[in-house]
Amino acid sequence: MAALVNRRTLRIEWGQCDPAGIVFYPQFLVIFDVSTGLLFARTGLSAGEMRKKYGILGMPLAEQGARFLRPCRFDDDIVGRTSFTVRHRILNQAKLAVDGFEKRVWAIADPDQPGKIKPVPIPDEIIASLSDPSGATTCSRN
Amino acid sequence: MAALVNRRTLRIEWGQCDPAGIVFYPQFLVIFDVSTGLLFARTGLSAGEMRKKYGILGMPLAEQGARFLRPCRFDDDIVGRTSFTVRHRILNQAKLAVDGFEKRVWAIADPDQPGKIKPVPIPDEIIASLSDPSGATTCSRN
Amino acid sequence: MAALVNRRTLRIEWGQCDPAGIVFYPQFLVIFDVSTGLLFARTGLSAGEMRKKYGILGMPLAEQGARFLRPCRFDDDIVGRTSFTVRHRILNQAKLAVDGFEKRVWAIADPDQPGKIKPVPIPDEIIASLSDPSGATTCSRN
Amino acid sequence: MAALVNRRTLRIEWGQCDPAGIVFYPQFLVIFDVSTGLLFARTGLSAGEMRKKYGILGMPLAEQGARFLRPCRFDDDIVGRTSFTVRHRILNQAKLAVDGFEKRVWAIADPDQPGKIKPVPIPDEIIASLSDPSGATTCSRN
Repeated sequence: MAALVNRRTLRIEWGQCDPAGIVFYPQFLVIFDVSTGLLFARTGLSAGEMRKKYGILGMPLAEQGARFLRPCRFDDDIVGRTSFTVRHRILNQAKLAVDGFEKRVWAIADPDQPGKIKPVPIPDEIIASLSDPSGATTCSRN
Repeated sequence: MAALVNRRTLRIEWGQCDPAGIVFYPQFLVIFDVSTGLLFARTGLSAGEMRKKYGILGMPLAEQGARFLRPCRFDDDIVGRTSFTVRHRILNQAKLAVDGFEKRVWAIADPDQPGKIKPVPIPDEIIASLSDPSGATTCSRN
Repeated sequence: MAALVNRRTLRIEWGQCDPAGIVFYPQFLVIFDVSTGLLFARTGLSAGEMRKKYGILGMPLAEQGARFLRPCRFDDDIVGRTSFTVRHRILNQAKLAVDGFEKRVWAIADPDQPGKIKPVPIPDEIIASLSDPSGATTCSRN
Repeated sequence: MAALVNRRTLRIEWGQCDPAGIVFYPQFLVIFDVSTGLLFARTGLSAGEMRKKYGILGMPLAEQGARFLRPCRFDDDIVGRTSFTVRHRILNQAKLAVDGFEKRVWAIADPDQPGKIKPVPIPDEIIASLSDPSGATTCSRN
């Protein structure tokens, strides 16, 4: 199955921009974080419900990266496309503006070490629900 | 006893400013929050230690307000003065730039309602340690 | 004419919350700032267009305040109501959670002092477009 | 010449952490941005002065990435080490917590296209002032 792609449109806000008039880049990671949450909402569970149902504390980042190809400015309408791996692409006027990825872990409270987190495999049903039924390949766990 | 005043100098960062080149105002509240933490550090306890020792979840805000008198720009060196009530004043080149206040509560986990917080009185020793021994009046609980 | 009220629903994001699991309060001011922008969008102009058309640099805050009545948590769906004065109210499950106000100025680049801003009156048409035609009183300039 | 390394200690703030009690990862990029500014301050110019002297609008990011090795929590004292390439490493209790890099450009206002930016080479003197005189190799432009 091919990876599911979640798409959302958002408008660049004043407070996301810096004195050069462009998005202050950590704000893109805030956008990515929300987009990942919205992608996982395609499972039919809200992010809060998913935390409760699977006993995870969240999905902490293991690694991320981004290339910044063109500036995004206040009041620009951008399109965020997020797929499971997790890859984020932000388009500004149909051209790629930011190309990023995230490697997250599925993390529970470590039963052996209070105050620590422990990564565990992502449940199969979550992976299945994030895969596009029209495709032919299986999503790999990242 | 007069209220203790905590003073700190900080430089306005690029990412705190908006496209008009001035501090995006919610950033002042982030500055206030850190300043309140530093004021309470005058008790000799770190904010984390204070949470543990007194079993509080934190000091959630009940009310706050601010007047913005002059803009603060990237690379400006500002002076933050914070006193217990809690009042925050930010000076830019010795002139008052932001005048704000916060009313916080001392909050514990509500023993009767899981997931809720419950305000309790601030311990006397905390109030005493935030008062200026040179003064003659007692800090009031806010 | 009565003041126009703009209403929007938003979901509390993970990154807006602090270790107590509730919204880190400066994030409410970020929400307020966007809400003010959306209120002014009722004029038919985007915030960017408004800046260009009227030659303003923005609408810097002169004063703001907020009372925090009940906590808002990750994944809560909240309702923001913003009216021209500018007053912000955030409801969480139909109960008032945050009650805030802002006094902003309509600011242009000062023609006499490079690098400074100068407040000027809000254009009548902007005020009219932010007033509710069903009401009977005129919005006052704040 | 070997690359100069700038080191700073900072304490994790309440508002930088999320409901899992660890740093919300975009906040690390805010830390990186300030650290890059402080590294460039080793040139003897403040970031603002550098912008004026060289006519640059800033140093927009072209690419960045980070690996997150161990969580950083509220009230942790962390050490940030930044070297010219730009590489950021954050240590928590002497162990590597976040390992990141940034590729920035030195950007001026494009003289041919109003509203656009144009990357230009970093001045030799800036590179020289960011190199450690005790080393034997030259910093490469990234």
